[in-house]
This record gives sequence, C-alpha cells and structure tokens, in this order.
Amino acid sequence: MLLEDVLIVDPVDGEYVGTIEFDKKVEKIVRSNKTHYNSIIMPAFVDPHIHGIMGIDTIASSSNDFQKFKEYEALEGVFLFFPTTVTCTLEKLNDISNNLPDGLKLHIEGPFISEERKGAHNEKYIINPPKNISELEKYIPIEKIGIITIAPEKENFLYFADSCNEKGIRISLGHSNANFETAKMAYEKGYKRITHFPNALSPMHHRDLNMVGAGFYFDFIVEIIADGIHSAPEFVDLVYKIKGADKIILVTDSISATGLKDGDYLLGDLPVKVVDGIARLSNGTIAGSTLRFSQALKNFQKFTKCTLQELAKVTSYNACKDLGLDCGRIAEGKDAKFVQLDNELNILKTWNY
Amino acid sequence: MLLEDVLIVDPVDGEYVGTIEFDKKVEKIVRSNKTHYNSIIMPAFVDPHIHGIMGIDTIASSSNDFQKFKEYEALEGVFLFFPTTVTCTLEKLNDISNNLPDGLKLHIEGPFISEERKGAHNEKYIINPPKNISELEKYIPIEKIGIITIAPEKENFLYFADSCNEKGIRISLGHSNANFETAKMAYEKGYKRITHFPNALSPMHHRDLNMVGAGFYFDFIVEIIADGIHSAPEFVDLVYKIKGADKIILVTDSISATGLKDGDYLLGDLPVKVVDGIARLSNGTIAGSTLRFSQALKNFQKFTKCTLQELAKVTSYNACKDLGLDCGRIAEGKDAKFVQLDNELNILKTWNY
Repeated sequence: MLLEDVLIVDPVDGEYVGTIEFDKKVEKIVRSNKTHYNSIIMPAFVDPHIHGIMGIDTIASSSNDFQKFKEYEALEGVFLFFPTTVTCTLEKLNDISNNLPDGLKLHIEGPFISEERKGAHNEKYIINPPKNISELEKYIPIEKIGIITIAPEKENFLYFADSCNEKGIRISLGHSNANFETAKMAYEKGYKRITHFPNALSPMHHRDLNMVGAGFYFDFIVEIIADGIHSAPEFVDLVYKIKGADKIILVTDSISATGLKDGDYLLGDLPVKVVDGIARLSNGTIAGSTLRFSQALKNFQKFTKCTLQELAKVTSYNACKDLGLDCGRIAEGKDAKFVQLDNELNILKTWNY
Repeated sequence: MLLEDVLIVDPVDGEYVGTIEFDKKVEKIVRSNKTHYNSIIMPAFVDPHIHGIMGIDTIASSSNDFQKFKEYEALEGVFLFFPTTVTCTLEKLNDISNNLPDGLKLHIEGPFISEERKGAHNEKYIINPPKNISELEKYIPIEKIGIITIAPEKENFLYFADSCNEKGIRISLGHSNANFETAKMAYEKGYKRITHFPNALSPMHHRDLNMVGAGFYFDFIVEIIADGIHSAPEFVDLVYKIKGADKIILVTDSISATGLKDGDYLLGDLPVKVVDGIARLSNGTIAGSTLRFSQALKNFQKFTKCTLQELAKVTSYNACKDLGLDCGRIAEGKDAKFVQLDNELNILKTWNY
C-alpha cells in the first residue's frame, strides 16, 4: 500500500509531508519537500478508559458484544481500548472476563475505591483490595487485566499495587479522597498515573493540595475526559499548560448511551438519565460520558491549540508508552495502524485494524 | 562607602562576587573573579501588604506610630512598605491619611470587597466602590493611596478601576468571589494583580476555574504570604513552578501582634486571638499573619529552592516594577538601598534607609 504526499504526524519525529509504503508494518517512508498535502496520517488511537458505546456496556457484554465493541471503536479511530468495568462483585468480574475475547484486556475501575469519591459507582460493592493480586486471580486471569484504578488511601494499597506491578498490571490512582501526604507516598512509591483527572478526586485546597493539587505538583501522567463537561475547556487547557502534552492521556469514559439518543440507560446496575448528551444519576452526579474518541481529539485541539504532534501524543503514544507497548508511532518497522484525517480532523479512513 | 568581595545579587544582572562603591547611589561596581565572599548584598525589600507590627496597627496609627513603623520595617530589611488598612468607614480612612507621613502611601484593602470572601474584614463596612476615584478623594488625597484591593464582581468595578488607573493608583483583585468569566474580564481589561493569592478568593473548581484557577491560568502577578500557614509550603512551591519567580510578590499581611507574644489583639475593630503565632477571629478565620519579612524570604527559599536572583525578584524588584518604581536593583546609578545577609539569609545590616 502507498499513501502519497500525506502529512505524517509522528509523536517523536514530528510533522512532515511524505509518502508511506506499508503492509502490516511501515516498510518505507520518503520525506518530500512539498508543502501541500491532501490528508493527515496519525497513529491510530488508544482509549484506556471506556465503559461502552452504542448500547454495549462492558459489564453486561457477551463475546459477540465485545466483537461489535471493537468494530465501533475502529470507526472512532481507536485500534486499542480497555473495556472498563464499574464497581461490582468479584463474581461479576469473573463473568465479564469469561466473555472477553483474546487480545482485549480490562480496565478494572473499582471496587477498590473511595466511598467518599465513588462518583457513579455503586457503594455497596466497594471493598478494600486484597494484599495480593493472587486473590483476584481466583476470579479473573491476570492476562485479562490491563489497568486497575485504585484509591491509594485504601487498606493494603501498597501490598496490592506492588503485587500488580510485578505482574505487569498498570495501577492508576483514582476515585480517591486521599490527602497530599498519601498522594505523595503513592507517587514516590512509583504509582504515577491518575484516572480521569480531576474527576472523583479530593480537590486542591491551598492548605492541603490533596489529590488534584498533587496531580499538578508531581509529574503524574493523567487521563483527561475532554468533553467540556467533566471539566471546563479552560481546565483542560490549564492541565496542558502546566503538565504539557507528554503527561496527558485522552480517554472517553463513555458509556453504553454513546452514539444513541437521550434517554434512560444503565451504568453497571445504576440507572442513568442522558439529557442533551450528559449522563447523570438521579442525584445529579455525572455518570461517565457520551464522548466519542473522534470528538475528544477535536475538543482537545480546540481547548489547547496544541500541535498535531502533541495531539498524536495524547491520543495514542503516551498511552502506549504508559502501558509499556510498542505502538503509537509512524516510523519504518512499526505497525502500520493509522488514522487518515482531513484538515478539520474528521476521520476519513482507518488502516489495519 | 565600599563593600568588598560581597556576593552581589541583582534581579537582572544575576549573582556575582564584586565590590560596590556607593553613597546614596551606587557609584561603581567592580566584578571580581574570586569565588569566595563574606556576605550577600541584595536590594532592600518591599512589602506592599502589611497591616502592622510590634503593637502598631495602620488603622489606629498616630504620626509617631508611623515613624516607629518605618524603623521596625528597616530592621526587617524593608525600605518601602504600604501600610494596609482593613475594611472601615471612609471617615476612618480620612483619619488614617491625616496621620500618614509624607513618603508613605496606603494599601486600601476593602471596603470594596466581597461579603462572601471577607475573611477577617468587618462585613458591616463593606460597600460598593463609587463610579469614580474622585468620590474617594473627598476623604483621602490621591497621593496617599498606593494600592486598592477590590473584588472585580463589585458594582462599578470597571468605572472605578479605570479612574484609579488614570491617577496612577494600582488596582489589585482580592477578597473576591468572582467566577472565571469575571476574573477573565478584569484580566483582559488590564487588571493583572491579585492580593494574597489564593486566600479569600473563590477556589478553583474544574467546571469553573473561578479566581484561584484564573490566577494560575492567566499571567496575573500575585501577592504570596509565605508563612506556611496561609497556604501549605507545597502550594507556594506550586505557584512558583507554574507562574515563575517573575510573577510573585512576597508580602507579610502582618498585624500588630507581629513580634509580640501570643494573646488578644485587634485587627481593625475585630478581636483577634494569637496562638502559636497564628492569628484568628473567634470563628477560626485566619486574621492576617505574624510573619516578619526577614522570615518570609527564608521560607520562600526553603519552600521553592529558588535562586538568590529569583529571591531578589520576589522580595523587591517585582513589587517595584509592578508599582512603576525605579527600585529593587543593584546597579551603577541606582539608589544604594541594600540588605546585607549571611549565608543563612539572616540580615546583618541595612543600608541607606
């Protein structure tokens, strides 16, 4: 295959006009001295935090649903995603993992979270983590777990996190009411990733920075839901200005209502009402998003005026690096997983997934 | 006068060993290639926000008190300070200005502030500003006013601020409950200074940055009380990391109890109890500080690990520039107002004031 005179956007090599020859891998890239180009080629996207889309909910998915999930994500430009659970029983996690096809890994968000910062999670299933991931392994095979969101103030946090770390499971701090001291402890122990910053985290106070302040203060990498609802556009821009494009991972946090009409849905077993695309519990708590990844990148670019190279970082490369995966690049020898976009960042075509 | 082989710290020229020849002005500076020095010479300090010290309170000061105030400040290394009022009647401001010696200008903090963010100010005297500074001029001569703290959400804000600006009075945003939109409006109209950030300001929320978020988001210059009480050391460090040393002005916000024992004092007409050096109203609200300027600079350096050149900016040069004054430098032709310090930043001697 040949893509001629396209704007190639690589997170490392930058933006340049060139021609790409590829099959499953990128075989050859030839730089051009032309300035005109017809379309933009970016690395295909990664969404590490997504509950559902088009009526599909991770927590209630059959094998067939997961296949459809992959197809919908491909339309969004996403080649790698982590179906994300909400707080539920360990037995329920077992059911889900049984239906999960090979090649997909879960993001387990809860049940090891804070009651005070539960957001749209069902409090009755919240528990402390076991001391060792082996206890969880009785319900769900290690190889089916990609990420676990956990509040660092939970009992056994360090024991559990360290045992996950040894097994290659990525720990993300989230749904946490921790103070600055606890946030600092977790950071210094190597746990440097935060789930949907700054949502469901103890807010910054000037006499205790808490989780949100720690997120700014230390060199954490943070998930951001760039829907303009979970946080104001200026907040997203502030995170970008302070932390820079290397420390942001865009996620959708989208739920089954995404792509469907306003109305009544479920998130886990909690009823959710979607009005004007905003999903809430009956008490008004925001309950995930209806954000599509194809919109998230446009929003982020609009909120921050970032470069395309930076956009390639926050939509793919940072998530790949964070997970220890060799992806998110457009370079010779790398997987040829691309998104082709027009100048308004509309997706024209996806390649190889 | 001659100071030989001292470490000269200038906010513009940086830090270097040299010899200074001076009388009222700096006559000559000769750089040395020695690395050893006996003491540090920094520009004398400026405190734009100080209510009192050693039993003296701006709001209850006689002419004689103001003279003593100057002497006490000289001991702190401060050659220029703005005696700061608390919210009171315009008649009271008239009394104060009648006692104010030539060469001193007031920082008028209130009565044009927010009821919701009044801090330790007496709500019963809070009023909207007049449309024009000329209304205030009936009570206090323009030349006796240096700075006015005002909440940007108050009625007539822009009319009043613009009329102050024309007369060379510095407007500082403070004691404000403004949302982001109002903060942005004030910033875009040119009002880019914030009083004792982040105290008595609407806190940052991720769905409305409010005043504190706006302080981080825009290029405001901010007063900081570096006592470790008004805000945590990490908060001060966060402001330094995000905004940089060019955008910070150290102030003490100190009250009459400063330098005296714990006990009962007044701030304006409100009773204040000082316990372990922390001044509070009976409801627990922090009521100014007991911070000495000579301690503020040590704290800031400890909290941020800033360079001495940066310390010269936050203790003097930034305040001078902000007020349109030619001071805060150690350079040939400039006023020879210095502080001589040892390596632990203890003040050894002050020069020319």
